[in-house]
Amino acid sequence: MKKYVEDYHTGDIFELGEYIPRKKEIIDFAKKYDPFPFHLDELEAEKTIFKGLISSGWMTALIWLGMMHKEFWSHETTMGSPGHEEMVWPIPVRPDDVLKGKVEILESRISKSKPEIGFVRYQAILQNQKKEDVFRTTSTIIMKSRPK
Amino acid sequence: MKKYVEDYHTGDIFELGEYIPRKKEIIDFAKKYDPFPFHLDELEAEKTIFKGLISSGWMTALIWLGMMHKEFWSHETTMGSPGHEEMVWPIPVRPDDVLKGKVEILESRISKSKPEIGFVRYQAILQNQKKEDVFRTTSTIIMKSRPK
Repeated sequence: MKKYVEDYHTGDIFELGEYIPRKKEIIDFAKKYDPFPFHLDELEAEKTIFKGLISSGWMTALIWLGMMHKEFWSHETTMGSPGHEEMVWPIPVRPDDVLKGKVEILESRISKSKPEIGFVRYQAILQNQKKEDVFRTTSTIIMKSRPK
Repeated sequence: MKKYVEDYHTGDIFELGEYIPRKKEIIDFAKKYDPFPFHLDELEAEKTIFKGLISSGWMTALIWLGMMHKEFWSHETTMGSPGHEEMVWPIPVRPDDVLKGKVEILESRISKSKPEIGFVRYQAILQNQKKEDVFRTTSTIIMKSRPK
């Protein structure tokens, strides 16, 4: 469904579904993008402060991004993002964690200078099966406003 | 070379080398992780405000991450990061842009409660061939301090 800036309101909450990262995916991602020992190898990871394999925070971010594409973004009206104000990984993600995502709208407004577009600011969170936040980010998307 | 918290000082600047993203890589990444029309397809991208194909900001971030692994992180002493304070994409990255990376140390300090570790806060930038910032982020890494 096509969504416009006007369809989002402060306090709206959207569920983003579930994702379970597996060991192989964590290791393959680390090999390609983020080869720290604690992302790459179970035995090496045991020797670190993490006491076991953990996901690259960037892979965790891309898991969230995948959820956003599946459950949240409207591809016809979203015009990208200038960036993220904050992106944190409070607790590591481990193989077979059950991650659930959620987005809360912080602000939604039409541009004063260009009323055909607007800005939707949100906070997104991924939690594991213990309800611990494993990923949290605040960002703004630029989006079309509803045609008059 | 093994580096410790004590090896970094406010104002130190590190060059991160160069990377040229190609069209195929941009499209392949978008298909897998960030399927917005302006990342996916040249013709569709022409119709958007970007007037052509641009890299996913997440791919740009991973290009930077790759540079950090090659030129900056010490894998034996780096213990991960709690997150990023800021991550922005001021100008889009386009196919065949010549990206150059740089890191500036903002602060480096030993932990008071756990003197065996410390924190290195930095700002990293990627610039294109026109010296425009295409990616900027501020973050902190946790790192071992030099053994006594």
